[in-house]
Amino acid sequence: MPFAMNAWYQAAWAAEVGRSLLQRWICGQPMCLYRTAGGEPVALADRCPHRKYPLSLGRLDGDVVECGYHGYRIDATGTCVGVAEQDEKPRASVRRHPVAERDAVLWVWPGDPAAADPALIPGLEWLTDPGWTHVHGLVPLKARQELLLENLLDLSHETFLHPTTIGNAAVAATPIEVAGDASSVRFRRHMLGIEPPPFYQQSMGLTAPADRWQDGEFIAPGVFLLHIRMAPSGTQEPEGFHMKVFHGMTPSVDGECHDFYALGRDYLLDDAALSKFQHQQQLSVMAEDVRALEIQENMYATGGDRIPESSIKGDVAALRGRRIVRRMIAAEHMAEAAATAAPGARRAG
Amino acid sequence: MPFAMNAWYQAAWAAEVGRSLLQRWICGQPMCLYRTAGGEPVALADRCPHRKYPLSLGRLDGDVVECGYHGYRIDATGTCVGVAEQDEKPRASVRRHPVAERDAVLWVWPGDPAAADPALIPGLEWLTDPGWTHVHGLVPLKARQELLLENLLDLSHETFLHPTTIGNAAVAATPIEVAGDASSVRFRRHMLGIEPPPFYQQSMGLTAPADRWQDGEFIAPGVFLLHIRMAPSGTQEPEGFHMKVFHGMTPSVDGECHDFYALGRDYLLDDAALSKFQHQQQLSVMAEDVRALEIQENMYATGGDRIPESSIKGDVAALRGRRIVRRMIAAEHMAEAAATAAPGARRAG
Amino acid sequence: MPFAMNAWYQAAWAAEVGRSLLQRWICGQPMCLYRTAGGEPVALADRCPHRKYPLSLGRLDGDVVECGYHGYRIDATGTCVGVAEQDEKPRASVRRHPVAERDAVLWVWPGDPAAADPALIPGLEWLTDPGWTHVHGLVPLKARQELLLENLLDLSHETFLHPTTIGNAAVAATPIEVAGDASSVRFRRHMLGIEPPPFYQQSMGLTAPADRWQDGEFIAPGVFLLHIRMAPSGTQEPEGFHMKVFHGMTPSVDGECHDFYALGRDYLLDDAALSKFQHQQQLSVMAEDVRALEIQENMYATGGDRIPESSIKGDVAALRGRRIVRRMIAAEHMAEAAATAAPGARRAG
Repeated sequence: MPFAMNAWYQAAWAAEVGRSLLQRWICGQPMCLYRTAGGEPVALADRCPHRKYPLSLGRLDGDVVECGYHGYRIDATGTCVGVAEQDEKPRASVRRHPVAERDAVLWVWPGDPAAADPALIPGLEWLTDPGWTHVHGLVPLKARQELLLENLLDLSHETFLHPTTIGNAAVAATPIEVAGDASSVRFRRHMLGIEPPPFYQQSMGLTAPADRWQDGEFIAPGVFLLHIRMAPSGTQEPEGFHMKVFHGMTPSVDGECHDFYALGRDYLLDDAALSKFQHQQQLSVMAEDVRALEIQENMYATGGDRIPESSIKGDVAALRGRRIVRRMIAAEHMAEAAATAAPGARRAG
Repeated sequence: MPFAMNAWYQAAWAAEVGRSLLQRWICGQPMCLYRTAGGEPVALADRCPHRKYPLSLGRLDGDVVECGYHGYRIDATGTCVGVAEQDEKPRASVRRHPVAERDAVLWVWPGDPAAADPALIPGLEWLTDPGWTHVHGLVPLKARQELLLENLLDLSHETFLHPTTIGNAAVAATPIEVAGDASSVRFRRHMLGIEPPPFYQQSMGLTAPADRWQDGEFIAPGVFLLHIRMAPSGTQEPEGFHMKVFHGMTPSVDGECHDFYALGRDYLLDDAALSKFQHQQQLSVMAEDVRALEIQENMYATGGDRIPESSIKGDVAALRGRRIVRRMIAAEHMAEAAATAAPGARRAG
Repeated sequence: MPFAMNAWYQAAWAAEVGRSLLQRWICGQPMCLYRTAGGEPVALADRCPHRKYPLSLGRLDGDVVECGYHGYRIDATGTCVGVAEQDEKPRASVRRHPVAERDAVLWVWPGDPAAADPALIPGLEWLTDPGWTHVHGLVPLKARQELLLENLLDLSHETFLHPTTIGNAAVAATPIEVAGDASSVRFRRHMLGIEPPPFYQQSMGLTAPADRWQDGEFIAPGVFLLHIRMAPSGTQEPEGFHMKVFHGMTPSVDGECHDFYALGRDYLLDDAALSKFQHQQQLSVMAEDVRALEIQENMYATGGDRIPESSIKGDVAALRGRRIVRRMIAAEHMAEAAATAAPGARRAG
């Protein structure tokens, strides 16, 4: 699988998952998501151990999922606890993936459960902070996750792809500073004394000259967070408008991914009309990205393996991000190859 | 080809085939079906020997098919008998597949013609027996034939997939007895003193307690027949309502099959409204199966080769059926490999 | 790639290409077509050297294409001349394909530019000759170019596929004479004293007996030209009606091609209603061909590699044409293999 499996990915918004069964593909695997009567989230491999029918098409009976084809009954640990056809319990089970609910997000770990350390979950406390409000949702994307990741780590594209909303000449013209470590990338682009782009003029009433900060963060492999500050030129923090853009970038199947997004602000918290306006703008902007990324995916998919590539300084953050994820994938492949090659090794199905 | 080729399969309902040309894919091969002026059914390989255009898009001239692209003329033996462009007959032919018409069914043998013994055709005399009436049709299925076969040989699924029509708790709760031989499987499920499922209440006026018999038969690789008896509890054969369900399961292309079905009864033979009701119910039930099987096909197709499987007692008939067909396929592959490896072997095109 | 690359193909009708960007796939390669301010046609490889986004989705700034994703600026030679994000020019370029505009056609050479000799472009002077008028267009075809080529080089199919417009029994019944050389095929079919087919009766008012000439020319790999004469029997050239049918047959991607067509005449030049009628008839005829060729493509694609083939005398022109193109492709593959095997060889990306 061309995915980094040993990692936390957003599986859903926490509020999406309740007392009904939801199928979602994560890193090439179908998962059946639901909550127990006690409210605990569960992610089971979504192929019945009997004949592979999706458990998510069955029904919940207490905390047990009953398959909708032949009635295998699977509990929240993934263990078969019975079937109507016979008294003996079938010895069967499906994988239960580690999940964690935090900050309004349901996280899942598709890889080796033993390595699933909740301490590795990125913090998104602002999503439930009363000093912030946000809009959010999920956009399916028929493009590999890497292309979304690079899109977000190189915001110079705003100038060209989003000129009528969040982009203007200043974005591409302002260099970024990049930092980070083995599993994250940070960049900052501080645009000072500029004309605010249309979206910010409309939602903040800002006029030129203004300062616009874009402080981005990528936490490998699936989280992108952008800290935005818009303020009249010359003012200092914490003065000004603050916004945050979050993307939970989760591979679904080969060449496709989920784009969970949230757009938050720390001002006019109760202004429902503003929330609606910002949500519409966000969806407009993302529709431009979706179109571009799906076209780009096709150009990669049809372009052969060895097409050369040109990069510039502004790509440093995106290239670091890409490299981190590719290294994770390569390391997992090497570990798997070593395990397979080891004497007496046995491969789990 | 992942199909058992040396076998009789239903190619069509006999009444579908007449003096026009019909294309049907059988076991990965396009066939051109028609009848001669004398009424004999014909199945020709449906690629013109000239440039592969489907003969079925041409026209019948007597018993000769004239290709609709360049006019090759192919007779009912598959031999080219002329072409408008020149006086000399081209030396060309297409394969004529053995066919047989019996019991309202047109059977075809897609494999080695020398092995096509009409004595091997399963008997379905009730389809033309004046003591019976039936409705029938063809449903295309985007699922491998094996999944349809297992669906029919494990009717416990009626409880879960068809709860509003033919299923209730009694089906899954009643064990089956299984018998058979190297090329067939039989099972019986006799449910005694039960509540009749909705379909039978409505079409027979039966009330509880009733007896329901399901005596099934699989004749490899493509025929399933279910003998049904519904009667007030305590009555003896031949008292009660008898029905039969037939499925001609014919692989079309990889991952797809034809589901020829018939539903017959031996009571109220002239009740056209009942026939219409039963046909509608049958199509409703099959629509539930089609949806489930096409989803299941996708779960198998995306699941890799080695997904483990759990089975229970109720699967015995389905597992036997599957094994018989897989053995037929394996035996054909071995025979072909042996023939290819033999010194001086030549491979037919 | 299964295409002859070192050849001139029609990329567009000249009038299609102007001061906006047009994407067209030619021989498996996306191309970005436009004209410079000076009117010169340009064909650039349509993947930005930065991140493969189609240049054709960007915008023209003078003669420079600015990529619509991150703003790479590519001039008409394919060289990157800047990017908004930094002062230094990226060292990057895309391939510029040789193009030539002639006779209302824009030609492109997708292969080795060094071999692109404009003297090899087939002459189509009649397309701009004031003694002629024509209708033209482009029909996309989901069939390999070879099938279109064979369709046109064996017009006996008119009898069977186009019986209500341009075909009648005389076409298939009249043998052709074939000539040609290593890169072209010519055939003539002179039908004397025949009934004119419906299309010619309607557009010329001809009645039987008439003479119909079909003098065809294939110039490998992508040009087909048919010279038609219809006249009352017994008259001599230049008396009669003359028409020409042109097809620019350009592979687009695997299993598909562009069918650029033109239908010209040397009579009633100003009769707009006749032009409209002829265009409609041409499109009707081509719709029959498209349907047949796309079905035929599927029969080849699903038929395996070794299906045997029968041919007749009337196929001589088509077989020559096919062989010429296959030889071109094989020669290119051998040259490439030799270049790769040579010591010190380096492969261009």
